[in-house]
Amino acid sequence: MTNKNGDLYVIPTPLNEDLDDFYTPKQKKRINHIQHFVVENKKPARNSLKKLELNTSLQELKLHENNKNVQLNYEEVLDILKSGSDVGLISDCGLPGVSDPGSELVLKCHFDNIKVKTIAQESSILSSLACSGCNGQNFEFIGYLPIDKNKRKKYLSNLAVEIKKSKKTFIFIETPHRNLETFQFLLESLNTENLVCIAYDINGDSESILTNSIKGWEKINIEFEKKPCIFLVN
Amino acid sequence: MTNKNGDLYVIPTPLNEDLDDFYTPKQKKRINHIQHFVVENKKPARNSLKKLELNTSLQELKLHENNKNVQLNYEEVLDILKSGSDVGLISDCGLPGVSDPGSELVLKCHFDNIKVKTIAQESSILSSLACSGCNGQNFEFIGYLPIDKNKRKKYLSNLAVEIKKSKKTFIFIETPHRNLETFQFLLESLNTENLVCIAYDINGDSESILTNSIKGWEKINIEFEKKPCIFLVN
Repeated sequence: MTNKNGDLYVIPTPLNEDLDDFYTPKQKKRINHIQHFVVENKKPARNSLKKLELNTSLQELKLHENNKNVQLNYEEVLDILKSGSDVGLISDCGLPGVSDPGSELVLKCHFDNIKVKTIAQESSILSSLACSGCNGQNFEFIGYLPIDKNKRKKYLSNLAVEIKKSKKTFIFIETPHRNLETFQFLLESLNTENLVCIAYDINGDSESILTNSIKGWEKINIEFEKKPCIFLVN
Repeated sequence: MTNKNGDLYVIPTPLNEDLDDFYTPKQKKRINHIQHFVVENKKPARNSLKKLELNTSLQELKLHENNKNVQLNYEEVLDILKSGSDVGLISDCGLPGVSDPGSELVLKCHFDNIKVKTIAQESSILSSLACSGCNGQNFEFIGYLPIDKNKRKKYLSNLAVEIKKSKKTFIFIETPHRNLETFQFLLESLNTENLVCIAYDINGDSESILTNSIKGWEKINIEFEKKPCIFLVN
């Protein structure tokens, strides 16, 4: 018996449903054991799930719908995860949470200490967005922050104002030796309710994608790997 | 003998160089004939090109570097394309043109009537950005535009002001029955030098990703497929 939580896997699906060769063998292998899927709509979901060649038959899979008309029972899904089972998250096509439903569940997982992982592999920017739980309906990638400390601090304070106004997610990259300093600037510049996601080594062995509120981060003693880091602020 | 131009293929590379299972057989098959690659740096490029299992040996491939220190000879690459050979575009890791070099070459191809295609398949937003030639160092996804005509027009006029100020690329989605109207609003609202990319059916049989300036689009009689369309404005 284990009391380890299951993981939430954020899974991309083909843009073109006729594509019969979308996942690589390793991608399939990582998630072929999953039996519970949160999906946008069941019909397109079945078409995508077929391509994943899961160990469980389509008929036996448990599909939980999450769209404009059907409100997902979040408690039920979190209970499945807490019972130790992994759950997959897919949307009709593309990446869940990026201009598609999904980020609300992802965020609840972060707040419930459930690991969020992904088999998406083409872009660290969108993989981290999909796994962050931050707003994926309106987001801005701003590249690198100003190197000068004062300019960087000022820039981050402006972000806090912008987020309050627009609810937009801001995404930026930081170099390893400035990760900790920038993170401390975030704690000082943002409001307690703002979300910060720290993503590094996506698809690597030490992959870590963690989201918390400023209030939550203040209580955590975070250590940064010496790796480039993607920050998301919302 | 053919005088058809070659195509530029925008190719994602793994975020984690140890990943030995990144491309599907169909992705490899689409580009295994390519002999010329524009790369960011040769060493990581060779590592990625190995994974593509090309028909040509690594030693015989022609690699053209494009990075902060090495200025790509654009004329040479365009001549290769105009002679009928396809060219691949890769960056060190991730998607070329998205927080990585590449968009300048992509834009030159659009202006020279060279088709830009991609084997990226996880996100229509980033695939279209990578293939647009628009600024991928700072971009904002804004989802859907306002439905009300006057609000939509006003919104687009504001974008023109924003682009002038920040050089940012704005990305939005439009529903099929509003594609033409929104396109006409773009022609009316933006400045002649602004770029508009229209991308639809990415990874589909009728995939089309076209970028032109407002000045250029004014001379073209465009017909929209009855498909959702991604617009990029820069």
